[in-house]
Amino acid sequence: MPALSLNFSQDEYRQRLVKTRRAMEIAGVDVIIVSDPSNMAWLTGYDGWSFYVHQCVVVGPDGDPVWFGRGQDANGAKRTSYLADANIIGYPDNYVQSTERHPMDYLSARLADLGWADKRIGVEMDNYWFSAAAFASLQKHMSNAQFSDATALVNWQRAVKSPQEIDYMRKAARVVERMHAAIFEKCEPGYRKCDLVADIYSAGLRYDETLGIGGDYPAIVPLLPSGTDAAAPHLTWDDQPMKAGEGTFFEIAGVYKRYHCPLSRTVFLGKPTQVFLDAEKAVLEGMEAGLEAAKAGNLCEDIANAFFTVLKKHGISKDNRTGYPIGLSYPPDWGERTMSLRPGDKTVLEENMTFHFMTGLWMDDWGFEITESIVIGANGPECLADVPRRLHVKD
Amino acid sequence: MPALSLNFSQDEYRQRLVKTRRAMEIAGVDVIIVSDPSNMAWLTGYDGWSFYVHQCVVVGPDGDPVWFGRGQDANGAKRTSYLADANIIGYPDNYVQSTERHPMDYLSARLADLGWADKRIGVEMDNYWFSAAAFASLQKHMSNAQFSDATALVNWQRAVKSPQEIDYMRKAARVVERMHAAIFEKCEPGYRKCDLVADIYSAGLRYDETLGIGGDYPAIVPLLPSGTDAAAPHLTWDDQPMKAGEGTFFEIAGVYKRYHCPLSRTVFLGKPTQVFLDAEKAVLEGMEAGLEAAKAGNLCEDIANAFFTVLKKHGISKDNRTGYPIGLSYPPDWGERTMSLRPGDKTVLEENMTFHFMTGLWMDDWGFEITESIVIGANGPECLADVPRRLHVKD
Repeated sequence: MPALSLNFSQDEYRQRLVKTRRAMEIAGVDVIIVSDPSNMAWLTGYDGWSFYVHQCVVVGPDGDPVWFGRGQDANGAKRTSYLADANIIGYPDNYVQSTERHPMDYLSARLADLGWADKRIGVEMDNYWFSAAAFASLQKHMSNAQFSDATALVNWQRAVKSPQEIDYMRKAARVVERMHAAIFEKCEPGYRKCDLVADIYSAGLRYDETLGIGGDYPAIVPLLPSGTDAAAPHLTWDDQPMKAGEGTFFEIAGVYKRYHCPLSRTVFLGKPTQVFLDAEKAVLEGMEAGLEAAKAGNLCEDIANAFFTVLKKHGISKDNRTGYPIGLSYPPDWGERTMSLRPGDKTVLEENMTFHFMTGLWMDDWGFEITESIVIGANGPECLADVPRRLHVKD
Repeated sequence: MPALSLNFSQDEYRQRLVKTRRAMEIAGVDVIIVSDPSNMAWLTGYDGWSFYVHQCVVVGPDGDPVWFGRGQDANGAKRTSYLADANIIGYPDNYVQSTERHPMDYLSARLADLGWADKRIGVEMDNYWFSAAAFASLQKHMSNAQFSDATALVNWQRAVKSPQEIDYMRKAARVVERMHAAIFEKCEPGYRKCDLVADIYSAGLRYDETLGIGGDYPAIVPLLPSGTDAAAPHLTWDDQPMKAGEGTFFEIAGVYKRYHCPLSRTVFLGKPTQVFLDAEKAVLEGMEAGLEAAKAGNLCEDIANAFFTVLKKHGISKDNRTGYPIGLSYPPDWGERTMSLRPGDKTVLEENMTFHFMTGLWMDDWGFEITESIVIGANGPECLADVPRRLHVKD
């Protein structure tokens, strides 16, 4: 087995565990079952595309976390996490997608072995990877446990980034710059979208000699709807040619060691319509206002209100949130699912929080995205990537 | 809005609905809440990367299905599904990742409007996209409903593929052939894995003039662990160079219109070790036996038993399942999560069922994958892709 190369120091993992246990204490839980792969990776280093079967990391009252997953993936846990073999539990393969037995039946027995079956146990109730059936199994097999909702408990500990995390996100920013350069270079009427996506992946993945890094997969595939389809924010692509006279937004992220730097730009092929020029003006002015509010001590909603006020002045109403925290992520989402940049979110911004300032507009028959990923500073934000902030026109 | 181009005829969608309602009747449910994006797409055509927020398709006692999702994604439903606007319900954005309100609160009210709140309602209890919190919300707000587990009810209706579906999977097979050709061409000592993954995406996505198609994203990113790392089946890649004297398996899929053709091959750089040569011999002989059993009327376990018997003769014991159904898929899994090719699965094979015959071996310090995707026929299987079935050696 090769020497383990962790993405963070043992000390950083230890601090994360301490932070998590402090939050557990405040939440009144002795044990937390962490099903979110991003949280699992953040706590232990575990990295693998195994989240299509049940798995979790369990943080108990003391000691290192316990990794729990499919038997064949235990080898992956041994190779990518800092955990000792004794802290890695694999379940037999006949628990996989079985109608007779559930992996959480097996976990319940192991938690009983550890003496944790009658504890106060936090579970991530509203996480993709914690199904209703998983919860039912735990409740059935650990009737003496007291379960409570710990959704996002670990996600919140991830909000303020360490220097090493910021470094990875800056590298991801270099990657996304390269991706947008490739888009602008290749995008033209007649060029097929599937080919453009291949170019985007190429720019996002290939080793860069100058940077000394290659890229990782994004938690969301490239989104690049054109024309009226751009009214829908989450369409992917097809194999049809790009057309003159249409706007296309490109919502993509550079990724390094699972850390994301999302960034969107809109490309118009041909002479932009007044609608696009007006949108550009409103969004750029609004972004300036929002970025000015993006400093430690302000609230999440301050950024959104600043942006929305300018939009309104331009006669545009945006009825969805305008950003979310980013960092370490696995599909299906590169957001951290804690704060939102929207009116009513009174979370206080802290230095080294990181957000995708998602200033996209999705109207009835058009869409427009110019966004920035930012690091909150004492006096204002650092924009992670440097891609010309304007409507990109190819005439 | 552009003319809707559905991937299947209205008639095919109608048949799917009829099949689903028949299964609902047998299961004793009046209404089914379908959270799985693959099932949502199969029933309505809906296609978008929006499954990171709560959404579903509801099939009621009569009429077309109802699409339910985030307000901004309703535009996507209008553009990709056959549903009338009246059957598309968007929820307000302040339900997104909120700690105060849950999208299923909103859905409950809509189901009450439709007169379905006191019905027998099936839910996909063990689906990624149906969290414990989603179920708790439904139970709280529809206390007169009778809930029951309908996990995989729709997935089972997808098991036997239509001619159009088989056609898409054959196209996906052409794509995966191209991907493996690219791997074999590029793979050599010193070549970086991230660059190889860029090549794989390029071959998987770019428009092919001969075929007249471009590719789609796979539900699982390329898996390509080398050497001892190949003991872990679900590691992805890094930016390090490939090494001489190591085996690497490539588990990838070609995808067309969300239909998958997975296929794995193993490449050895340099002179293969005896372990790899022995594995090749055992797996190829075992696959022949398994493929012979892959015909209508036989059972799922017959394929597995045939394969395992040969492996055992060669002194190899595989303790995990050896295949699963495939077709239309979204991340995180290109399997259909119904049958498994393993001892004990007594599902009767039918013509036009499709499987990934996943004959991978993951041992203590090495791994080996040569697999086939197959269509069950009356007298034997069709292997979808045509990639030389052997250990690929580059000396």
